[in-house]
Amino acid sequence: MRVLGVDPGLTRCGVGVVEGVAGRPLAMLGVGVVRTPADADLGHRLVAVEQGIERWLDEHRPEYVAVERVFSQHNVRTVMGTAQASAVAILCASRRGIPVALHTPSEVKAAVTGSGRADKAQVGAMVTRLLRLDAPPKPADAADALALAICHIWRAPALNRLQQAQAAHRTARSTARASVRKVPR
Amino acid sequence: MRVLGVDPGLTRCGVGVVEGVAGRPLAMLGVGVVRTPADADLGHRLVAVEQGIERWLDEHRPEYVAVERVFSQHNVRTVMGTAQASAVAILCASRRGIPVALHTPSEVKAAVTGSGRADKAQVGAMVTRLLRLDAPPKPADAADALALAICHIWRAPALNRLQQAQAAHRTARSTARASVRKVPR
Repeated sequence: MRVLGVDPGLTRCGVGVVEGVAGRPLAMLGVGVVRTPADADLGHRLVAVEQGIERWLDEHRPEYVAVERVFSQHNVRTVMGTAQASAVAILCASRRGIPVALHTPSEVKAAVTGSGRADKAQVGAMVTRLLRLDAPPKPADAADALALAICHIWRAPALNRLQQAQAAHRTARSTARASVRKVPR
Repeated sequence: MRVLGVDPGLTRCGVGVVEGVAGRPLAMLGVGVVRTPADADLGHRLVAVEQGIERWLDEHRPEYVAVERVFSQHNVRTVMGTAQASAVAILCASRRGIPVALHTPSEVKAAVTGSGRADKAQVGAMVTRLLRLDAPPKPADAADALALAICHIWRAPALNRLQQAQAAHRTARSTARASVRKVPR
């Protein structure tokens, strides 16, 4: 399974590609940051994020894209930018038919460190260890993007079972509805 | 001046096109709502918003796009969706090189009703009067999109003067910097 992790942001959007399956050693295929100038207008910044994400999708052809789920409990201004950058990343993937999964920061931390409240340094250290890198990827956004990809690879089996159950439930419900409709009036 | 106003939202994204200049009667060229199903996943919804906005841009070829500036003081979940839908609208316009202006809800209300705290009904009534319509556009998101376009047409002369002044300031500053660099070391 090849996953592009995206830690969304307008100033720095972390991106990292990891390949592997749960229970086996993982491999990093690429890591980087899409940057946009803080003094550019919002439209130009969103276009730059789109172009950056498109380049990563073109180059690495991931089967899944994992994006950090944005909450609005932090700084208002930052959160809006993060929500807007994440929208662009999700849009780019969905346009290509690539499934997108959202993981919360605490799900990601818990997946790679065992604690949902781990700090940046701990996440960086575990990413370095799990991907057998020489040093933690810099900046932290790049390490977070790799952590998101790892989190997705490890959570995917459980998420897939959940989605299959939900799909089966929806099918059963719509079959039930369809048979109700067939009753002659 | 032809302006597409966008009242961003995932469930209902209001769109309205107004043509005119400040101080002259305005004309509505189109109004509508881009809807996406609430039970679809975020990626599909963002793709649907993109396709909807693209159709409006194709059909009406606006010179400006005016989008409501999103604040995060309201319901957290709604605000995230609004921020993400607005990102898609801004992206679509900017990709085509169409200038995007953001106006706050109170700027829009103040522009069309004279009060920044006017309610939906008052905004709807003034939009109906200013565009000489038979009835207020429904739903409110559609009326709000027209109000945004009207607000932009009326605020544009002042905004343009501001932008020109800022651009002149930037040019003066970078010229000053350039001459500093030329000093032999």
